[in-house]
Amino acid sequence: MTQTVDILLTNAHILTMDEEFRQYRRGALAVQGDSIVAVGPQEEVTTQFTASQVLDCGGKVLMPGLVNAHTHVPMTLLRGLADDLRLDVWLLGYMWPVEREFVSPAFCRLGTLIACAEFIKSGVTAFADMYFFEDDVAQATAEAGLRGVCGQSVLKFPTSDSPSFEDALARAREFIQKWKGHPLIVPSVAPHAPYSTTPEILKACAQLAAEFDVPLQIHLSETAQEVETMREENGMPVVPYVKKQGLFEAKVLAAHCVHVDEGEMRTLLHARAGVAHNPSSNLKLASGFAPVSKMLETGLNVGIGTDGPASNNDLDMFEEVRLAALLAKTVSNDPTSLPAWQALAMATRIGAQAMHIGHLTGSLVPGKRADLILVDLNPLHNSPRFERDPNGPYAQIVYAAKSTDVTDVMVNGRWLMRDRQLLTLNEAELLAQAAEYARRIDAFLTAREQSVLSKLIALGGSSEEESYEVQVKVRLPDSAQIETALRSPELEVLYARHYRQYDHYFSFDDPAQGRLRYREDDLIDAKGKVTGVRTRLTLIGQTREGSFSGDILLSRSRYLAPAAQTLRFYREYFRPAEEKVVEKDRLRWKVKYKGEEFYINLDTIQRPEMGRFLEIKSRTWSRKDAQHKAQLAEELLALVGAAEAERITSDYVALA
Amino acid sequence: MTQTVDILLTNAHILTMDEEFRQYRRGALAVQGDSIVAVGPQEEVTTQFTASQVLDCGGKVLMPGLVNAHTHVPMTLLRGLADDLRLDVWLLGYMWPVEREFVSPAFCRLGTLIACAEFIKSGVTAFADMYFFEDDVAQATAEAGLRGVCGQSVLKFPTSDSPSFEDALARAREFIQKWKGHPLIVPSVAPHAPYSTTPEILKACAQLAAEFDVPLQIHLSETAQEVETMREENGMPVVPYVKKQGLFEAKVLAAHCVHVDEGEMRTLLHARAGVAHNPSSNLKLASGFAPVSKMLETGLNVGIGTDGPASNNDLDMFEEVRLAALLAKTVSNDPTSLPAWQALAMATRIGAQAMHIGHLTGSLVPGKRADLILVDLNPLHNSPRFERDPNGPYAQIVYAAKSTDVTDVMVNGRWLMRDRQLLTLNEAELLAQAAEYARRIDAFLTAREQSVLSKLIALGGSSEEESYEVQVKVRLPDSAQIETALRSPELEVLYARHYRQYDHYFSFDDPAQGRLRYREDDLIDAKGKVTGVRTRLTLIGQTREGSFSGDILLSRSRYLAPAAQTLRFYREYFRPAEEKVVEKDRLRWKVKYKGEEFYINLDTIQRPEMGRFLEIKSRTWSRKDAQHKAQLAEELLALVGAAEAERITSDYVALA
Repeated sequence: MTQTVDILLTNAHILTMDEEFRQYRRGALAVQGDSIVAVGPQEEVTTQFTASQVLDCGGKVLMPGLVNAHTHVPMTLLRGLADDLRLDVWLLGYMWPVEREFVSPAFCRLGTLIACAEFIKSGVTAFADMYFFEDDVAQATAEAGLRGVCGQSVLKFPTSDSPSFEDALARAREFIQKWKGHPLIVPSVAPHAPYSTTPEILKACAQLAAEFDVPLQIHLSETAQEVETMREENGMPVVPYVKKQGLFEAKVLAAHCVHVDEGEMRTLLHARAGVAHNPSSNLKLASGFAPVSKMLETGLNVGIGTDGPASNNDLDMFEEVRLAALLAKTVSNDPTSLPAWQALAMATRIGAQAMHIGHLTGSLVPGKRADLILVDLNPLHNSPRFERDPNGPYAQIVYAAKSTDVTDVMVNGRWLMRDRQLLTLNEAELLAQAAEYARRIDAFLTAREQSVLSKLIALGGSSEEESYEVQVKVRLPDSAQIETALRSPELEVLYARHYRQYDHYFSFDDPAQGRLRYREDDLIDAKGKVTGVRTRLTLIGQTREGSFSGDILLSRSRYLAPAAQTLRFYREYFRPAEEKVVEKDRLRWKVKYKGEEFYINLDTIQRPEMGRFLEIKSRTWSRKDAQHKAQLAEELLALVGAAEAERITSDYVALA
Repeated sequence: MTQTVDILLTNAHILTMDEEFRQYRRGALAVQGDSIVAVGPQEEVTTQFTASQVLDCGGKVLMPGLVNAHTHVPMTLLRGLADDLRLDVWLLGYMWPVEREFVSPAFCRLGTLIACAEFIKSGVTAFADMYFFEDDVAQATAEAGLRGVCGQSVLKFPTSDSPSFEDALARAREFIQKWKGHPLIVPSVAPHAPYSTTPEILKACAQLAAEFDVPLQIHLSETAQEVETMREENGMPVVPYVKKQGLFEAKVLAAHCVHVDEGEMRTLLHARAGVAHNPSSNLKLASGFAPVSKMLETGLNVGIGTDGPASNNDLDMFEEVRLAALLAKTVSNDPTSLPAWQALAMATRIGAQAMHIGHLTGSLVPGKRADLILVDLNPLHNSPRFERDPNGPYAQIVYAAKSTDVTDVMVNGRWLMRDRQLLTLNEAELLAQAAEYARRIDAFLTAREQSVLSKLIALGGSSEEESYEVQVKVRLPDSAQIETALRSPELEVLYARHYRQYDHYFSFDDPAQGRLRYREDDLIDAKGKVTGVRTRLTLIGQTREGSFSGDILLSRSRYLAPAAQTLRFYREYFRPAEEKVVEKDRLRWKVKYKGEEFYINLDTIQRPEMGRFLEIKSRTWSRKDAQHKAQLAEELLALVGAAEAERITSDYVALA
């Protein structure tokens, strides 16, 4: 007696991707409601089941949908915005300024819908996401009909959706409560990474995830720098650190794990944590080669992820599986490692297990949800087809097939694509909306990149410096008597300092942009030891604001900022046309002379070798005050015996 | 006044890929005959030119066709035949046996036509090939309308098309003479690699190439092993070695160059040699990471190749460019290295220069041949599109575009594809013919893989061993008097040997397959030093052929072969169900007793520890002779005092 089900798929080459890697060269699969009820040789299945909807698959491969174990789906809207940059330049210079300006619930919904369309067209049926406004990500995902493990991000900084981490945590709790039990969405909390959170945040997130028995997502050990900093600051690598914070109270999905040692792998295994390997992203950002084969040998569930589309630059899991399989061979110096069948399992069953939804999806076995795809292996780029080797079909999918070979996609028993036609999303409409965002983002960045000043402001933290300075500078004659003058009763020395200063001057093709100075000040004590280091960024206007007789200058430094990033960062971000270095020894006295404060700098320019200079400076606020101080500066010059010395009106860099 | 040309392409985003990386966001290009006559902003070009055929490109990217700098096109017919194997297993176990059986002029024609169809569909307009029957490869390429640098292979071994290297050289000369001057084909000679040729071959090939001023193609420094062997045998790395043979008298295109040092890079540069980088193939075969950024910095023309489709497993240059760009970043630990614009130049202009056809193709500049493609960047996986960054369009092509985004292809002024429809090739017909080859190859390999014996024979070099042996084996009692017996006047000792033997026994699920023994014999001298090592492979039949009274056995070793490959090779090739190791110390005497020759083996089994055994053996050719020798063997046993010892009828491995 036959049983009637909803859908019967026949005449398919079925790759079940189950534990035994069962294949049926002429197989059939029965779907009832949201689930698979039978899979096997066609004769067996069709004897047992009939259906109102019977689909002859025409010999195509029928397999579980691919599972993308780590991504940031709304970032489809930022794809191709900026590439070939170092991580800090990319993040601080482009991604974060744009995200601060544009990321909103609407942005996240649209970005997610576009990602879902791309997923469906390329055979992905489930993904793990971490982003902001995750409620909107989840809504859009459910609307598209895909399966998502959606993680609301928590960071120690203010973010697009939360002014503080307490807000982010509250948002995550509300999000989990709302979505828990949804047929497609598994809500999750996502403390961004150890370096962008605190022990308190990690603990709170783990407790939240444990309370609701939902997964916790986090970026772990993505770069060597991250591990090094962790060792310096906490005396241990990253995995023991998060373990110490109680992170493994939760079901963890750890993204990247590029720099983990064997002990850490065992810790992850014992914690039943899943790992998401992101080969394209790791290569593109030069993060390194993840020890994938070793993690698999250890017994870890290692899935494969694309990472965000802004750093990939797409969501193509076919590319990602192929890359994972290829890379592992050279990294382990063994062409037999990570064979095609195993790589494809990472992208299906093992990936689902890593995401803690292995009971729902990832293989074609009765009882699991009907998340499946049809792949046409007949195109030219995948011909001919050999039957001899059981690894053959896996090798065809992994090494030769393309995402565009996917023709049909079903999630949770519902068709999302038939014959390459999307059934739940309107592609043209999404593309039009995305183009509008791109236009606005382009305009925003173009405006910002019009000047060095606006690029500096975009980084944040800089402040306008309105002060004017009276300044006189001379090439110091050997006869000058600085020490004597300083002991003069007319002068009161408020303090004395000794610095070594390294100035890097960036100049630009358009001189109107001014010069950007990156200064490192090393404070030197009496014994010649460096006791403090300070770095500052100053945008110096090109033109002097005025001058007095005797080449006493009046200048203004327009923008000042603490140089929180490295010199290399600023070099790559501002891309100067020219860069010059001035290195000097500076003795600096703050003195009072006739009731006014002056700085006296005795500079020995050592690189390039230019000799000794004396600078006398004082801040000023009005033309009248400036004229008065200019007169006093002349008197000071005379006092040190340098009244006749050669006046210098240029910066050192202009002399260099 | 306007000039009339054949074809005018308008409304295109043109990436010229010229030296200055000129782009025209709304550009036009004029074609006359086989060549480009103008390219520039649309207004300029359309003011100057009119044409009978005007094509509005609808804003698609118009760029030079991609250039595949290294491949073996007929191997499309072997795509997916065997994967995830080590190079030697893959070559000796699968590729070479199949090539020996199937490669013919017809095979090469069909394989090339399929490759050309794949090339056209994926935007490749020129390629560099090395294979056999290259005249047929060239004919098929010209028929398809593609541009090819076709290299006739020369090896020191007999090949599919040439019984000797002299024949191969003669074939190459004839081939070059025939094709020299063809509008699409640049003939070339291809000495396979330093390790598969001789100094004489390298010299002769270089002279041939120089005589006709055609390129010479060769595989160089693909694996670390190759370099190591070269250093051991010739005291220098690979590039100086080939230089010494005069290779650089010719215009060289060197494939792979994975393991070259900076001195070798400079040698290649001074020789004006081009390099073909093959990232997928190098990863898949675990060959290593080529120093691409360093080679480019040195000034070398480094193109990108797919290598043969049997080791990739496709001819998709979009995948290859993306991989090259991603890999270089992590290998050089710098995410800014090999940016998209440079990677795409490697796959177009620089690749053409590496192939020594840079004057013909590789960029869209007036005077070069009209080899161009249209790429649609509107698909979802490549949206949105930002205009701000000049690197943006290159990044879209390299990181997000797919080969399936190519819509139109022109080579030498002739359309080969319009709106994704092939114009010169019948895809369905080609696929049907390929399927027929696949069926035959499957049958060939399946037959071969039916038994361990046929797999052994497929490797070549093995010989059937018809001999029968009379054999008696006993567990040696402590009381036995071997030395005394050997001094007995009835025995003449012909010689004595001392061995250490390492036996690896492979057994299989089906016991009828027999056991395969890999034996290493270390010959030991009087001082205990190893003076010789010999390895042999023996397929041992499962069943004894007969036995005599007293457990004297009659056995036959069916197949014997020198073990030219490593133990690891045989393990990966035969994939035994079980492997056992027996290690023993063997004292062996060849003796004459009553006019018959016998071997007496005194074996101490050390791993696993099993004690001492005595074997007495003699070859036999007839039942009568066997009965006689069995009787003599009993007498010998008595002579050494072991007549009553426990008889052993099993191999050591069965006892182990």
